[in-house]
Order: sequence, then structure tokens, then C-alpha cells
Amino acid sequence: MTEEQIREAMAKAVDDVREKNPLAPSITNTVTQDFVANAQLAIGGSAAMLYLADECEAMAKLAPALYINMGTAMPFYADTLPKTARALQTNQTPWTLDPVGIGLSSLRTDILKQFKEFKPSIVRGNASEIIALAKLWGLVETGGTVRGVDSTEKVSSAKTAALELAKFTGGAVAVSGAEDLVTDGTEEILCAGGSELFTKITGSGCALGGVMAIYLTVATPFIAALTATTMFNLAGSKAAALAPTPASFKVNFLDTLYELTGEGVADKFRAVGSFDKMFDAMFKEGLN
Amino acid sequence: MTEEQIREAMAKAVDDVREKNPLAPSITNTVTQDFVANAQLAIGGSAAMLYLADECEAMAKLAPALYINMGTAMPFYADTLPKTARALQTNQTPWTLDPVGIGLSSLRTDILKQFKEFKPSIVRGNASEIIALAKLWGLVETGGTVRGVDSTEKVSSAKTAALELAKFTGGAVAVSGAEDLVTDGTEEILCAGGSELFTKITGSGCALGGVMAIYLTVATPFIAALTATTMFNLAGSKAAALAPTPASFKVNFLDTLYELTGEGVADKFRAVGSFDKMFDAMFKEGLN
Amino acid sequence: MTEEQIREAMAKAVDDVREKNPLAPSITNTVTQDFVANAQLAIGGSAAMLYLADECEAMAKLAPALYINMGTAMPFYADTLPKTARALQTNQTPWTLDPVGIGLSSLRTDILKQFKEFKPSIVRGNASEIIALAKLWGLVETGGTVRGVDSTEKVSSAKTAALELAKFTGGAVAVSGAEDLVTDGTEEILCAGGSELFTKITGSGCALGGVMAIYLTVATPFIAALTATTMFNLAGSKAAALAPTPASFKVNFLDTLYELTGEGVADKFRAVGSFDKMFDAMFKEGLN
Repeated sequence: MTEEQIREAMAKAVDDVREKNPLAPSITNTVTQDFVANAQLAIGGSAAMLYLADECEAMAKLAPALYINMGTAMPFYADTLPKTARALQTNQTPWTLDPVGIGLSSLRTDILKQFKEFKPSIVRGNASEIIALAKLWGLVETGGTVRGVDSTEKVSSAKTAALELAKFTGGAVAVSGAEDLVTDGTEEILCAGGSELFTKITGSGCALGGVMAIYLTVATPFIAALTATTMFNLAGSKAAALAPTPASFKVNFLDTLYELTGEGVADKFRAVGSFDKMFDAMFKEGLN
Repeated sequence: MTEEQIREAMAKAVDDVREKNPLAPSITNTVTQDFVANAQLAIGGSAAMLYLADECEAMAKLAPALYINMGTAMPFYADTLPKTARALQTNQTPWTLDPVGIGLSSLRTDILKQFKEFKPSIVRGNASEIIALAKLWGLVETGGTVRGVDSTEKVSSAKTAALELAKFTGGAVAVSGAEDLVTDGTEEILCAGGSELFTKITGSGCALGGVMAIYLTVATPFIAALTATTMFNLAGSKAAALAPTPASFKVNFLDTLYELTGEGVADKFRAVGSFDKMFDAMFKEGLN
Repeated sequence: MTEEQIREAMAKAVDDVREKNPLAPSITNTVTQDFVANAQLAIGGSAAMLYLADECEAMAKLAPALYINMGTAMPFYADTLPKTARALQTNQTPWTLDPVGIGLSSLRTDILKQFKEFKPSIVRGNASEIIALAKLWGLVETGGTVRGVDSTEKVSSAKTAALELAKFTGGAVAVSGAEDLVTDGTEEILCAGGSELFTKITGSGCALGGVMAIYLTVATPFIAALTATTMFNLAGSKAAALAPTPASFKVNFLDTLYELTGEGVADKFRAVGSFDKMFDAMFKEGLN
């Protein structure tokens, strides 16, 4: 895709969601559900959080996309998550996976191993999580470590893992950090913008995954991941300019997300250096 | 009741709660618990969320009212919810039911079928949910569909279902939407006001149900449902005038709710046209 | 310790956390997890909420401190909580216990009885909860009652219970209320400040316990409890001065917490009257 084609596809995704109000149900952690749902609503989508296996299987058939976030796993996740992922594959429903907490327990490891077969449309995580998932699935040999839910690795260190994951799933992978890498295994886009304040509030990564699931209802995994990432960077930069403190930042972030238009997002999306090889280049000016 | 009697009863409910700080424990979904509890506190009530059957049974005996919201059902709800509803009936403790997600799974259907016997004091839902519950309980024959947690039906389409439900339970039914219908099976009040922004944040319906449970501690089901609905419409209109974006709206809404007085609520409550037959009339000016 | 030594230790704790970004995972109620995590992040810590026994046991070994809050107990808590507490003791990892909801059910009572053996580094609760725990552990004979999650007792009535608990655990106890008592069984400090608005939002007690767990990673239980309490009182007073309504107060509180420095906290900490016997004296001017 050319940069112009990407811009157009992103603008269309943003506007289509505002017009269609699509639903992307979530199985997601109890800490940040409120933020995930409000972010999904702010971009024009619809939200519903679920835990029961039969409800999630039904939604995997009925809804246009789903979001699975592994945070705050509960015992019944061992039943719900594999069944849901299988139903998603059976019904060819696109979904976003956030493998948060990978490696913390045998339950998470068992579930994430099973997910290899079901190939999530988008995998979103921090560098440590993306590396750990690529290792777990046997796609790369070496990798980083995870400390709780925070990354101990830089985004650049997860480049190979992200590429291999995307090639394997045939979808997209988004690595979140100070900069964000979005790839479909061929294209590699490095996104800048956002704010350090994202690290001072909970759930921005979770909300990003939930918003990607909404865009999966109207766009390809690559465009969905890129659109959500660009919007978060853009709204994050704007919100940080409005207030330098975390709780006000969170309010301003959601308010700004609500106001973004397809044209605005496309206008602000910029590539630095060679578009095909931009991973090692930085977006010097950010996206604000 | 005359309009003047309704006004007086509403004003008294608002002021009594501010004075008595009554507790209405909740079994409610994990997404919006924070918003529900903060709304209950903002009007002067007290909040406690619970999951375990024996704790909920104990509260059904000790607390003056309870709130049951079916969202994010977990496997142990099959144990907790029927036991709690039975204890509520045994102890003649009033309670509000929000049948959110009705029809999503056999667990929800089974529980909601059992609830017929226990007759909730208030049923609050969107039009689709109210129709679905009336159908499930065999009170109406036809009805709408539910998409996730959002309504696909207009409030007016749920009028018959609401009336039949209220006649059956002997309590009140509140149908939430662009306008809100509150009925005890005889009186039918259509409330206006509020804001489109309620659809851009999560949990306003859940919070409304939780606030109704607080007012059940000091008023009849009809007055409790009407008072809570009027307060949400009033605070929603005011909050929307303060900021046109969802996250700021949510903050302003809770702040405004905290500041409402019994006199203020009664003053703003207006009936349009014949008070006995106002369902088809609209509150042209809203409540702001 | 002299007052000057306490000031220095508090300032060091505040600054060390800002520098080291320590993680204190939580097992905590679903209502206020978002607020707990955001408070932990606002003071410079890191947050992760967990439910599974093996994950919590692993964290009891890996993390420098943990937080256990008994609110919204779920059936699997019977498995997770005792195992976690045992692992905390085995690994000599400090932890904060918030016995919220004590006495509500046999599950909570059974778990809290078992906790006696594992001696939490800090116990934080309202007066009713502290008295009830001291009674449950056979440390005092008489005591108050608990209504849901709110205290029915004044802080002063829990003085004996707090002292006995702290002597027994060898750690610290913090009793939260209009004033807050912090004791290690020898020192007794009464802290003032804060705001009535804390009673109009959910989770300030939970967040306080979570923040104490963060400070346990860099300080003694007594200093950790005192630092967190002082910061909450200070940020609460400032936030209440910025806005007199609860939702804005909550935003301003987190923003203010984010801006506090070690020097600022130490400067504002004041003792009234004899430092050794200050329990019966009041901080007349508060901490603002």
C-alpha cells in the first residue's frame, strides 16, 4: 500500500465506525473494563463485556469482531477462552488478542498455547509480551522477560517477533511503547505521538486493543491496528497538552478521542523517511 | 396520584436519602460498578457490591433494599442470584432488577425465569429488555430483539410490556431511552430531558438502576423509579450543557447529581398535556 | 523515632518510589480496582491485579510487596487468599491487608482467621473493621459492628484494637476515618486533613491500602502506612479546595497525588502537642 492508500483507508475506517456504531464484545480484565468500554464508545463503537463460555461463543457467531484480553484471568477462563477462540475461527470472525500477563501461570500459558491454532487477527501487546508470545508459539528462539503487566523491553527489540507473528497469523501485530510498531508481516509502520502520561494511568493498552477490535468490523487487521494506534497517539498528544496530570489527562484523552474525524486522523498521519523501511527512522515531530 | 402529590413524594424521597444515607447493596456487572457506586453516593446513599450467595442472602435480610443487575454474569451467578431473590421475597425487602443481557445465555434465561416468582419491586431496562422479559414471563406474546446490551427498540414499543410487567409484579417498571417511561401499571409517566451523551458513556442505565434501589429504601417503587429517572434526566441535561464531550460529561453528571435537592427536582418535574394520558405526549421543553 | 526522623523517612519513601517505580500486585475488589491502580501509578508505583492462586503465589515470591483487599469476595478466594498469604510469609514479602466486609460471610471469616498466622505487615481499615479483626483474632474482647463496607465507629474507639493488632503482627495498623490513626504498637500518630468528600466517592480506603503496599517496598510498615495516610490527607485537602463536588474531587485528588514530592509531604506533616501522646490531641489546623 502507498502512504496515500493507507491514509484513505484509515479515514474510511474512522468514519465508517462513527456511522455504523458496530459492536465488538470483550472478554477483558476487571481493572480496565470501564476505560475499554468508554474508549470504544468514544470512537463511535458499541461495547459489551462477557465471561460465560456460551455467551462468548454466541457472540463469536453474531458479532462482527471480538476482543480477548488475558488480564485478571479467573478460573473459568480455562473454559471460556479456548471455546470462544474456536468459535471465532469457525465463524471467521476477526478478533484482537492482548496476551497481557503471559507467563504468569500455567492457565494463561495453556490458553495462549491453544490460541496458536486459532490465529488472532490482531495481536497487541508491549514488547515483552509480543516477544513472549512469539517464543511460546515457537516462532522465535530468544526473547525478553515480563514484569507483571509492564514491558521490560523496547519496541525495537520486538521487531522480529512481531514480524514472525504477523506472518504466521496472516493478520497484524501492534507493539505498543514510547513508539508503536504496526506490521502485517510485510509493511512495517512506526508510529509516534502519544504521551508519557499513558504510563501514569491504567488501561491505555487494554483500551487500544478494544478499539482495534471495533475497527476490525470495518477494516483489515493492518488498517484497524494502525488506525487505533494513530488515534491514541493523536488524542494522547492533544490531551497531554491540555493538562500535565494523569486523571485530567484520562478525561481529556477520551474527550479528544470522541472528537477525532477520519479526515483529521489521516491528515496527522505522517511517515518519516523511506515508507518501506521506516522502522529504524523515527517520527521526529510526533503526530501532534 | 395528582401531579402535586407526585412532586411532593419525589422531593421527600430526595431529601430523605440525603438525611438517612441508606445502603442498597448490589450484585452488578464488573464494568460499571464504580459508576453505580459513585452515583449512589452522589445522591446521598451508601454502596456495597457483593457476589457470594450467603452474603447476598444476609444483605437481603439486613439491608433496606437491593439491586440486581445481570450484566457480566459469572458462573456462580447461578447459585447467588436465585437464592438472593428468594431471600428478598422472604424478607419482603424491595429490590430493583436490571435484566441486561437477557437472552444471551441459558444461565441468564434460567435465572430470569426463576425471578418471575420473586417479583422485583422495580424492573428497569431499555425497550428491548423490557419486551424480552415480559415475553419470557408469558405476559406478552410478541416483542423486539436485543443486540448485546443496547436496545433495538423505541421506548414507545415497550409500553404494553411495561404495563403488563408492572401489573404482574405490583411494583413499577422503568423503560429507559431517548424518553423514559415509568409506570406502576396504572400511572404512565413519560420523562424527557437527559442527553444523547448518555449513549456515549458506559453504565448510565446501570447507575440508574442502582439509584432506584437507594430510593426504594424511602419511597414506593413508582416514586423511587420516577425520582431516579427525573434526577438522571435533570443532571444529564445540565451536564451536557457544561461540556459536549463524554468523559467530561460523566464527571459533570456525577457532580450535578450530588448537588440536586428535593425542591429542585420537584420544581423541574413537568407534565405535558393530560396527566393521566401523557404517554403519547412529549415533554417538549425537556427538563433543563 | 523523633518527629524529625519520621519526616525524613517519609520524604525518602516518597522519593524512592518515584525513582524506582516498584510493583505491588493486588488481589482487590472489582469495584475500585481502577482507582487503586491509578493511585498506585500516581505516586510512581506500578500496579497489577490478579485472582488465580498460582499467579498470586508466584507474585508473593517475585514482587517486593502485595496488597490483599477482601471486598467483593468471589468463590475462588477460598483457594487464592490463604495460599497467597502463606507464600507471602514463606518469602517474607511484606503485605497490606484490608479486611473490608469482615463478618459478612463464613468464607471471609474463615480466610481472615487463617490470616492471623500469616501476620500482615499493615492492616488498614475503618474503625469497625479494625475492631472486628482484633476480636476475630482474640486480641480484644469487645467491639463495634460493621454495616456493609462503612464504619459505624469512630477512629478513637478502635485505639485499643489497633494497638493490640500492631503488637501482635509486629507491623503497623492504620485506622481510617475523619482522623486517621497510624500505630506500630508503640508510636501512635493521629493524622488530620483529607476531606468529607472522601465519603462521597468509592474506593479511597482501597486506594490507600494499595498505596501503602507500594510504600512497603521501600519503607517499614509504620512509615509506609504513615506516608500513604499523610499523602491522602494532603491531596484530599488540596483537591477539595479545587472543587466541592465528588467526581471533580476524585480527578483533582489523583492529579494532586501525582504532583506531591517527598519534601512537600514532610513539610506538611505536623504533630500537635506531645509527640508521644498525641492520640488525644487533634491536628487543629489539618494538613492543608
